Amino acid sequence: MPEKKRIYLDNAATTPVIPQVIKAMEPFWNQTFGNPSSLHEEGRRARVIVEESRRTIAKLLNVKPAEIFFTSGGTESANTVITGGFLEIGWKSIIITATEHKCVIKPAQRLTKHDVSVITVPTDRRGKVLLQELRTAIEQSERPTLVATIHGNNEIGTINPLDDIASIVKKHRDVYWLVDMVQTIGHIQVDLSHWDIDFAFASAHKFHGPKGCGFLFMKEGLPSIPLIMGGAQERNMRGGTENVPGIVGMATALKWMIDNLDKHYNHIANLKRTFIKNLKEISSEIAINGPEGEDSLPTIVNVRFPQVKDPLLLQMSLDIGGVSASIGSACASGTTEFSHVLKAIGVPADEAPIRFSFSPLNTIEEVGRALEVIKSVIFKI
Amino acid sequence: MPEKKRIYLDNAATTPVIPQVIKAMEPFWNQTFGNPSSLHEEGRRARVIVEESRRTIAKLLNVKPAEIFFTSGGTESANTVITGGFLEIGWKSIIITATEHKCVIKPAQRLTKHDVSVITVPTDRRGKVLLQELRTAIEQSERPTLVATIHGNNEIGTINPLDDIASIVKKHRDVYWLVDMVQTIGHIQVDLSHWDIDFAFASAHKFHGPKGCGFLFMKEGLPSIPLIMGGAQERNMRGGTENVPGIVGMATALKWMIDNLDKHYNHIANLKRTFIKNLKEISSEIAINGPEGEDSLPTIVNVRFPQVKDPLLLQMSLDIGGVSASIGSACASGTTEFSHVLKAIGVPADEAPIRFSFSPLNTIEEVGRALEVIKSVIFKI
Repeated sequence: MPEKKRIYLDNAATTPVIPQVIKAMEPFWNQTFGNPSSLHEEGRRARVIVEESRRTIAKLLNVKPAEIFFTSGGTESANTVITGGFLEIGWKSIIITATEHKCVIKPAQRLTKHDVSVITVPTDRRGKVLLQELRTAIEQSERPTLVATIHGNNEIGTINPLDDIASIVKKHRDVYWLVDMVQTIGHIQVDLSHWDIDFAFASAHKFHGPKGCGFLFMKEGLPSIPLIMGGAQERNMRGGTENVPGIVGMATALKWMIDNLDKHYNHIANLKRTFIKNLKEISSEIAINGPEGEDSLPTIVNVRFPQVKDPLLLQMSLDIGGVSASIGSACASGTTEFSHVLKAIGVPADEAPIRFSFSPLNTIEEVGRALEVIKSVIFKI
Repeated sequence: MPEKKRIYLDNAATTPVIPQVIKAMEPFWNQTFGNPSSLHEEGRRARVIVEESRRTIAKLLNVKPAEIFFTSGGTESANTVITGGFLEIGWKSIIITATEHKCVIKPAQRLTKHDVSVITVPTDRRGKVLLQELRTAIEQSERPTLVATIHGNNEIGTINPLDDIASIVKKHRDVYWLVDMVQTIGHIQVDLSHWDIDFAFASAHKFHGPKGCGFLFMKEGLPSIPLIMGGAQERNMRGGTENVPGIVGMATALKWMIDNLDKHYNHIANLKRTFIKNLKEISSEIAINGPEGEDSLPTIVNVRFPQVKDPLLLQMSLDIGGVSASIGSACASGTTEFSHVLKAIGVPADEAPIRFSFSPLNTIEEVGRALEVIKSVIFKI
């Protein structure tokens, strides 16, 4: 009897690498394997592909190649702006929203030991940052100030209103703006030149690229704020031999995602609609944490099962049934603390939240099967 | 006419990934692709392999698995100790040798802006740190102090006397010891538990593993000093989704290197001996920068060609002849400044230094062919 194929609905945690990306990386393991900093043929060939990948990514996001810096992922990129910026620019204040990812919250909080004020701006019940409170926080902050506002939330899928935020942040001198785009770049339309953002970042493995590779966008003309120093790589913004296969894989994956964005978006939005509609038919008590509509990512659905008291038990039961979903974010898994994002939007701590997240690889048939598993499981536990 | 195969003698810059490593990484692109922090089956399977890789590496180096932290490479590891340590432990002094890699020098120097004293201890003409000067520097340093002594130098191959250094460093309270083992781990015998080192690091792509992956050894019981914060990965020492294929590849490569270490060592030492002997027969003016014997790495030969005034021209001519070698280190390539390592050992700036570096994959036949190319080239330019 063939094993039933599992249904992976945890694409906000990580995604499988698509075959064309595996193939694109192949020549760079032991053929074009040189160090891009080496001047000989092997090195020069590696350099060419690194710069070609940079141009590909820059073009897809409508920015200049010189504004893209390769890193090991989203978390390193965020830490570069926060900690590298602290060491080089000397943040006096860091303003974050209540629903930032831990890769922003934790390095910011550490800097309170080093006399940096960290101000958390609350959100509304949909997870959007409160604009008036953001404005006040910026006005009252000691400069230089870093403002971090996540674009698409990784737990509940809220999309923050970047146009409105820009009009507040960009009015002030010595105020820099950082936007976590890990869940949006490759998933929804992003023209990085549109908002006058100072720093933004993404992670390859969230869009079917390899783990261990990401990038930081940094607006031209800003001071250098390296976190990791060593060789002159990335124009002194990031030391260490470039992860050539990773960079090629990332560019290939992002190109596939953005070239097919409309098709993917419609497909995933349909999966999400179908999923939510059918979920609510299972039980009227099932609710969605965060927004459901246009102002949310099509990829993420955070579901509240009020009948279920133990989200871990529910997640495990789904897992046994062949459905992979998560409690909050993967980065917070293993810890028992209640999600700071759900707390920020006022979800009671005793109602089981489960995050389902889709990718272009998921099918409507998988959604149907997942609903069957959910149905059978929630009435059992 | 078939193209003549190039001779890659720049293995200290980077190495090709060996086929068994490519194969070992394969299942982790889109089969076992989960996020190790996820609690479902995909995540748990990824977690298992990450921890298995950690145990493999720990065992090969005779330390505990809990003492190994995965990073994106050597440079990140060094920066973790220097900058993470500054933020968490609060280095007042950092003592480095004159022949450290830039991944140690640069982050240390940056901290002088933040009231950290950086003291550079000179070396002898072979590149070994002067022990009496090291002792004095430590005694006079304001604590807490970080002492960084490179194990095997990446430009001239000098092996520092860790036994002697340990007897000096480990006498003092609030003095921490960091050892750059990028060129030694996997290449010469290293029992990491032997010297009571606090921090050491290595990089996978220097031993036929993938780029973008390395590790930091940190002695049990030391305070947590993360550089990159976010999720609770690596027991809160390094946020960001683990580079699962990279970690598996690194463990596989290191196991191959260490399981075959004696065989590789003898093979490479023979290549180096043959190379040097024949070089000197080409011209009696050709000399070696740094030591040649037991106190040097078998992998690295830094050659001085006093007849040649322009090392770049020599390197390019070798490249055209099919031989890949480097001027100093790859990390310093592209810059025109004279190597700080060669300056430290008293090499005149007007004598062309070329580094040749071997790996187990090089053959004696390649060394013979390289010598022919060198011969034909140096008399031409």
